[in-house]
Amino acid sequence: MLRTHTAGSLRAAHIGQTVTLTGWVDRRRDHGGVAFIDLRDSSGIAQVVIRDEEVAHPLRSEFVLKVTGEVSERPEGNANENLPTGDIEVIATDVEVLNASAPLPFQVSTALDGQETVGEEARLKHRYLDLRRPGPAAALRLRSKANQVARRVLDEHEFVEIETPTLTRSTPEGARDFLVPARLNPGSWYALPQSPQLFKQLLMVGGMERYYQLARSYRDEDFRADRQPEFTQLDIEMSFVDQEDVIALGEQVVAELWKLIDVEIPTPIERITFADAMRLYGSDKPDLRFGNTIVELAEYFADTSFRVFQQEYVGSVVMPGGASLPRRQFDAWQDWAKSRGARGLAYVTFAEDGTLGGPVAKNLTDTERDGLAAITGAQPGDAVFFAAGKTNEARALLGAARVEIAHRTDQISDDDWAFVWVVDAPLFKPTGEDPEDVDLGNSAWTAVHHAFTSPKPEHLDTFDKDPESALSYAYDIVCNGVEMGGGSIRIHQRDVQERIFQVMGIGEEEAQEKFGFLLDAFAFGAPPHGGIAFGWDRVLQLLTKTDSIREVIAFPKSGNGYDPLTAAPAPITPEQRAEAGVDYEPEED
Amino acid sequence: MLRTHTAGSLRAAHIGQTVTLTGWVDRRRDHGGVAFIDLRDSSGIAQVVIRDEEVAHPLRSEFVLKVTGEVSERPEGNANENLPTGDIEVIATDVEVLNASAPLPFQVSTALDGQETVGEEARLKHRYLDLRRPGPAAALRLRSKANQVARRVLDEHEFVEIETPTLTRSTPEGARDFLVPARLNPGSWYALPQSPQLFKQLLMVGGMERYYQLARSYRDEDFRADRQPEFTQLDIEMSFVDQEDVIALGEQVVAELWKLIDVEIPTPIERITFADAMRLYGSDKPDLRFGNTIVELAEYFADTSFRVFQQEYVGSVVMPGGASLPRRQFDAWQDWAKSRGARGLAYVTFAEDGTLGGPVAKNLTDTERDGLAAITGAQPGDAVFFAAGKTNEARALLGAARVEIAHRTDQISDDDWAFVWVVDAPLFKPTGEDPEDVDLGNSAWTAVHHAFTSPKPEHLDTFDKDPESALSYAYDIVCNGVEMGGGSIRIHQRDVQERIFQVMGIGEEEAQEKFGFLLDAFAFGAPPHGGIAFGWDRVLQLLTKTDSIREVIAFPKSGNGYDPLTAAPAPITPEQRAEAGVDYEPEED
Repeated sequence: MLRTHTAGSLRAAHIGQTVTLTGWVDRRRDHGGVAFIDLRDSSGIAQVVIRDEEVAHPLRSEFVLKVTGEVSERPEGNANENLPTGDIEVIATDVEVLNASAPLPFQVSTALDGQETVGEEARLKHRYLDLRRPGPAAALRLRSKANQVARRVLDEHEFVEIETPTLTRSTPEGARDFLVPARLNPGSWYALPQSPQLFKQLLMVGGMERYYQLARSYRDEDFRADRQPEFTQLDIEMSFVDQEDVIALGEQVVAELWKLIDVEIPTPIERITFADAMRLYGSDKPDLRFGNTIVELAEYFADTSFRVFQQEYVGSVVMPGGASLPRRQFDAWQDWAKSRGARGLAYVTFAEDGTLGGPVAKNLTDTERDGLAAITGAQPGDAVFFAAGKTNEARALLGAARVEIAHRTDQISDDDWAFVWVVDAPLFKPTGEDPEDVDLGNSAWTAVHHAFTSPKPEHLDTFDKDPESALSYAYDIVCNGVEMGGGSIRIHQRDVQERIFQVMGIGEEEAQEKFGFLLDAFAFGAPPHGGIAFGWDRVLQLLTKTDSIREVIAFPKSGNGYDPLTAAPAPITPEQRAEAGVDYEPEED
Repeated sequence: MLRTHTAGSLRAAHIGQTVTLTGWVDRRRDHGGVAFIDLRDSSGIAQVVIRDEEVAHPLRSEFVLKVTGEVSERPEGNANENLPTGDIEVIATDVEVLNASAPLPFQVSTALDGQETVGEEARLKHRYLDLRRPGPAAALRLRSKANQVARRVLDEHEFVEIETPTLTRSTPEGARDFLVPARLNPGSWYALPQSPQLFKQLLMVGGMERYYQLARSYRDEDFRADRQPEFTQLDIEMSFVDQEDVIALGEQVVAELWKLIDVEIPTPIERITFADAMRLYGSDKPDLRFGNTIVELAEYFADTSFRVFQQEYVGSVVMPGGASLPRRQFDAWQDWAKSRGARGLAYVTFAEDGTLGGPVAKNLTDTERDGLAAITGAQPGDAVFFAAGKTNEARALLGAARVEIAHRTDQISDDDWAFVWVVDAPLFKPTGEDPEDVDLGNSAWTAVHHAFTSPKPEHLDTFDKDPESALSYAYDIVCNGVEMGGGSIRIHQRDVQERIFQVMGIGEEEAQEKFGFLLDAFAFGAPPHGGIAFGWDRVLQLLTKTDSIREVIAFPKSGNGYDPLTAAPAPITPEQRAEAGVDYEPEED
């Protein structure tokens, strides 16, 4: 090593020793012809004192130095209690500039403590400078620790880490595939996997029994949400298990991860059915850091003469203290609702004296008005928002309003953690609900999770006769309203898989062509199996309390999958195109 | 869990307990109306006794069972000492068929002990059955253990595990890139990385100091050799280090890995210069499991009248005991040499009485004949092979002959291990030497390792004036004649990098366009850094003593990158093609 010690490791015990440090000039101050340099390496900072003006003269921010000198006690009164190395300084006897630095596009000094705001484009373009800042560096280091923790748990349970192919055949996960032309098989293309789903199931058929992988996965989606074209899953699969086994393992992984940030998660983690999550929280990713659940009012308003509430669904959510909001704030809520595709957000205010206000109130009968506080749970001084219409849409609006209210009324602290398993989701949903879905078959029904999720045992006989009622043997884990992971018990019987394909409108021939290898595998003694995958970027975003998965990825893409650092993707040459066989035309007979 | 115990864990101590096992019917024997089933799971085998003929009747090989029964001592004389569970058997009281199995395309029973030979095509097509066989399963399990071991070493040294992008810009590693059309940036393509080279260097510039990753990498090469389009590297990079530091770490990783197979590797591992490796072994991947080095004879034959030996290079290698080979074997050696592109392989035999034989002998002078045994190291009874011509070609032929001789004369045992670092390789080689190279620039010189390898300190000033003599600050680790890994100290100074590009014929503009982000990064205080990458598949092939990297990959491709299991790659639909933007034409102004 070019150094004898790391900068951050020096203490009073080193006083009198001659050490060699390497690192970056984090900050420089000059005082009476002496240069004081904060020398930074990954371990921390040590103060270097350079008395030779000629030596000190050229040194600027982010120069890379190799400094030899004696560790000395700082003069009386100059110790820095905020710095682990604050009792000492290194009196330089030799300073070598290992590399210079041009003036920086933005400052990275730890002295700024991450306070300086830098635009994202600049950060990504100069990510190698951004990573010298304390926050971004800490996020990557925590990610590495999280990998260690997860592997330790899985090693204890004798999981086998197995890599699955990424140049493969399209796996039907419901999104668009990235494609790769196969030069040696002209006219044919590989697909990058959306998940290792089929391969991990094949590993179970192969008797590996316990598999895991931190698996790179790919989805060619529109990047409007906080998504990346490539992402990482902690992918786990087990044989001879039931839902309880996978959930128990998942909880152990999560509990150990949160210990990294000194949070003890009580286990077992709460569970909620999909139906209850939708009813009470208007979301399959309920945020349980706060209460304020949705109240269903269709029955209450069953005989109402107010046309707006004459709908299949009416529900409400309380806005604590909302009665005192100025009118323009309620107008802003209307805009908020409209931006989500709703017509608006009806509301009633409850004054401290119990009188009802807002435009809706006058449309209600006395009876409806009298019972409203009690049924909605509103206290004097609160407001209540209403949504009416189609059940799913109205619930989604109230669920979003509930979360928005919690943020605006400071009901959430940075240290709140609420975990929940969402279970008993429907097996199928009507085709076309999600515009991003790539539907596999040609049917009114498509899979909620994916085509390989087993129906719950009690629906095994009936799921194809009554797809609407069938529940899946699946479980999602949600933290603070964010889906961190999910999994299911899989189908392991060929006939069940074929019946699922039928419901989804995938004909026998198509099933054989696309998934014949899986159906064949099931015919040769496939064991019962199931698993779970954690969205690893999402998990790390939660652990680091950052606001985007881009903060926990070393080299993230910006919008539309563009990398400002390397300027990828980029045009290719005609030679590359020809060689890759992109335009191959089979010769005619 | 569906089971209470694993099959392989049962011992005499369990006698009397009621257990539930799950697993596969490995073998079935019937005796006096009783079925004896070897039930297999990943832990091993337990014998299950089914007395109910009706229950036992349908059970066939590879059926998946859940068996409940009492653990009993095997009757006197029936214990099986070869089986860890051989003292007991489970008397079934309940047998549930979890899944049936169709007749298998090939047998997988452990009873065959991997003796059955199965064609590779069948194995890959039914890889999920192949993995039930003891050998293939053990290879994947050892790979998982190797990952653990490597990570343990790196964790001890505080390395940070960081994932780098795989949808990226072409990285110039000297092979062809796989390309991915970018739908959201029509006309642009991502490249899959040939290694994380540039990103790991950027991480060093970013101050991460110690990085590692088990990194998936991609090369679109012709798969004539034992290669896969995607492969895995254990990729390591460190800042503020010298060659000695990286080599020491590399040796620790290797030593810990080989302990997995109970081999203690003496460290430090031997080193040899590239020049010596070529001179003595005719290879930059010398196999040191045996001696028998090449002898240079150009000086000895400086004045020879034998035209064949009037060349820039003459060398020899001994074939122990070769004097007694029949003529047709020497003819076969001629064919062997011709298949390698040589004209033939001259030879002389040394009879027990010292007389020389073979067609060459009569062309030599008495003096040349008299001294030949001494200078070539031949003993009575040996033969000596000669090669003469261009130095590189002749050495390569003798090097290959040396290895072939060792195999044919049984000089190598399965338990021999010989490790060596090859150091001081040339920095540049003439362009066009390797037909698989994709040369970056337009020059007579190209990089031996890659364009980011630093010259040795003593060549830093002169490498561009005298490219032929410049040595690289690089090191390859070779085991048993196989290159397992390699690395280098990198360039960290912009001006040095620019001079390297110049030698390689990469103009300033091209350098800026392709590698501007790296050159820019070097301008902002890049630290000295270096690293190493192990070809992880190759390491595992060595550790498992298998004869192909396909044996240590869960789902390998066969020739030409085809996967017989999933039939990838496959044609895409016109819709997919249109959506991916493959045929995008920019609109003209």
